Amino acid sequence: MNFVDIILDKRYGRALSDEQIDFFIKSVTDKTVPDYQVSALLMAIVLNGMDDREMTTLTMKMASSGEMNDLSFVDGIAVDKHSTGGVGDKITPIVLPLCATFGVPGVKLSGRGLGFTGGTVDKFESVKGFNVQVSQEDFPKYLEKSGMVISGQTPSLAPADKILYALRDVTGTVDSIPLIASSIMSKKIAGGAQAIVLDVTCGSGAFMKTEEDARKLASAMIRIGNLAGRKTVAVITNMDEPLGKAVGNVLEMQEVHEVLLGRGSSDVVEVACALASRMITLAGKNDGMSIESLEEECKKRIQDGTVLAKYYELIISQGGNILPSGAPEYVEKPFEDIRVPATQDGYIKGIQADVIGKASVMLGAGRLTKEDKIDYGAGICFYRKVGDKVKRGDVICSLYRGESVTPDDEKLFDAMEMISDAITYSSEIVEPTKAVIDVLD
Amino acid sequence: MNFVDIILDKRYGRALSDEQIDFFIKSVTDKTVPDYQVSALLMAIVLNGMDDREMTTLTMKMASSGEMNDLSFVDGIAVDKHSTGGVGDKITPIVLPLCATFGVPGVKLSGRGLGFTGGTVDKFESVKGFNVQVSQEDFPKYLEKSGMVISGQTPSLAPADKILYALRDVTGTVDSIPLIASSIMSKKIAGGAQAIVLDVTCGSGAFMKTEEDARKLASAMIRIGNLAGRKTVAVITNMDEPLGKAVGNVLEMQEVHEVLLGRGSSDVVEVACALASRMITLAGKNDGMSIESLEEECKKRIQDGTVLAKYYELIISQGGNILPSGAPEYVEKPFEDIRVPATQDGYIKGIQADVIGKASVMLGAGRLTKEDKIDYGAGICFYRKVGDKVKRGDVICSLYRGESVTPDDEKLFDAMEMISDAITYSSEIVEPTKAVIDVLD
Repeated sequence: MNFVDIILDKRYGRALSDEQIDFFIKSVTDKTVPDYQVSALLMAIVLNGMDDREMTTLTMKMASSGEMNDLSFVDGIAVDKHSTGGVGDKITPIVLPLCATFGVPGVKLSGRGLGFTGGTVDKFESVKGFNVQVSQEDFPKYLEKSGMVISGQTPSLAPADKILYALRDVTGTVDSIPLIASSIMSKKIAGGAQAIVLDVTCGSGAFMKTEEDARKLASAMIRIGNLAGRKTVAVITNMDEPLGKAVGNVLEMQEVHEVLLGRGSSDVVEVACALASRMITLAGKNDGMSIESLEEECKKRIQDGTVLAKYYELIISQGGNILPSGAPEYVEKPFEDIRVPATQDGYIKGIQADVIGKASVMLGAGRLTKEDKIDYGAGICFYRKVGDKVKRGDVICSLYRGESVTPDDEKLFDAMEMISDAITYSSEIVEPTKAVIDVLD
Repeated sequence: MNFVDIILDKRYGRALSDEQIDFFIKSVTDKTVPDYQVSALLMAIVLNGMDDREMTTLTMKMASSGEMNDLSFVDGIAVDKHSTGGVGDKITPIVLPLCATFGVPGVKLSGRGLGFTGGTVDKFESVKGFNVQVSQEDFPKYLEKSGMVISGQTPSLAPADKILYALRDVTGTVDSIPLIASSIMSKKIAGGAQAIVLDVTCGSGAFMKTEEDARKLASAMIRIGNLAGRKTVAVITNMDEPLGKAVGNVLEMQEVHEVLLGRGSSDVVEVACALASRMITLAGKNDGMSIESLEEECKKRIQDGTVLAKYYELIISQGGNILPSGAPEYVEKPFEDIRVPATQDGYIKGIQADVIGKASVMLGAGRLTKEDKIDYGAGICFYRKVGDKVKRGDVICSLYRGESVTPDDEKLFDAMEMISDAITYSSEIVEPTKAVIDVLD
């Protein structure tokens, strides 16, 4: 088979055969094709698209380009949850124990954060003693203890996807529904998921800026999942303003604790329950309940402390410390520094999530490159959300300084200015953001 | 400036600015951009196109990426002629002396053949003693002698085009009107042309397979020429069957001699006169004559031996030998080997030019790689053309064997079979091919 013929087929808008996609991914994995041919093909895919069969084959070939995770030890159906990324997204530490209260086994392979999107592993590492370096052989032991396990020690899943992603990043070929959808799904399938619940975010702090694009991506991933024999459901959620109140690692884990004490932001609870109810259903643990009743039951269990108890089990099972006060012990105490006041009277119209994410990275809460060290305590905490009525001078949020930043560091003032500019006001009443936009399956 | 932003602009269908195109070509010439980024951009150009301003800027930036040929020593307007390639195309050795009889100075930088398209330099080298290694400084001397000069010693014109072409060849991005048009025009402009007459071929033996595509390419090159201040005219010619009767180097030069003796195929004469009349007009040597009268005058000068006399001057000026018989002496005597008979009674409906070209390469008349040696004597000579009435068994053409091929070489039989299969018949009357389809300016 000739790689140029594959490029030409896609360049002329023809569907690639399964054999061609197999050759493509094998050549990429074995590094037997030069990058310049791969990038030409990627651009042709970006501009001429792929049909469902092509996307599914691409997904499966990328999934099987490396080690395939075996979750057969899980008792029941292994349901994975994936978010396309956002700012202030602390949903995993909530849904994992929430689902576990329904008997859903929770195996979560998570990554670290890069750019303004936080990573679940970093968040759990904010809890003192919490060990995310759990090797695959120990998963059954943890599952037996708490019914859950979080691991940052991901095996080399879908190496072809990794190579392609690095090339896409430098050739203007990231933004493509078939390439994004197959990249996400290949990692989920390689990770061993038998069913998948997707949190497809949209808005300024998400990869998909518009609801329309989020729907397209969600629908593509559902079609791939179904063709690949993995039942897939997608929840479209809003990421125009940060999710919940906190952005930053310790700050977000503190918010998780607040949520599980029944004092959480309604958007966080709503997204968590929308996702958990679908995960529970796909795992076959819904016990005949409708999605609506399940969502209610999820909310109830968050409110009444049932989930908190399970959350403690997870923390303790992986070595984390719970203080006598009932709060987890964190690796650092966030140090409140600057408060950002409202610049006018009125209703908060918008809090631009991507800018908030970038400001939090500037404060030390995130990484710009994989090698960057993060400050667990750094971040931003909002007291007001979109739709809230404020008076000029009211504190909208506080900046928390990381260890790498001294109190007179210009970065603090730059971040403050960025944040202040990211908040817009209206003299008219503004509706709060609808956290869950739709559910597709 | 960031190369990825340039890729993204074109990926989203936006026109590139002159500064972006300048950066693109500079980065390619200086090799400061990785091939994988260039090929992604090329594919985006292939699929999203370029407007006239972008194509013209691309042309001029590629033209000025290396040495620009200075033809200011030419007395009058330097008109260049370019063919987009074909099989049996022996037009340059005819139009050069033809134009010279009107006082048009002829400076021709020509290339060698590659693939099934023959090269003018190879053809002139079929004449014993003819020296194509003429350096630029000697051009005025030759122009004074015969009014013409042919040089195969092209300076390093448009190096960016050369680099891009090599990459396009292996990334499925050859077939693109903006890229083809700017590639051709950049070399013509770098070569010093002040006006350009294009022979845009179409059909099986041409790069453009359809008349529609040939018109698009012609029109793009005319628009570039006009925006770049080089008056450009395009003659659309048919390349569905080979032009004239001979394919192969010595064979074609023998046909040129026949044409100049007034015994040439009408298609060769027609194409030569269509091109020459435009070249003479653009050079301002038409002496008030209309194109129609000029074409008639060109035909007359071919018939009455005026052009032959000028042709002898060209041959002698560059060291070629004319035998006492009046024919040039060739480096090799073609050796007739196999005759291809008509397989049925009827009219010849088609002689597929690309297959004939490939068969001639197989016989040794052309090169598959730049390093291949060619057999000057090898080739194919047709006695019949499309539209001719034949009886089963009539000889349609003869194969001439090159030195590298022994009489029992299987290649000969393979070539014969290919040629036989490339000839189709009809029981109905078939019109001869219209050699000149249209003229655009």
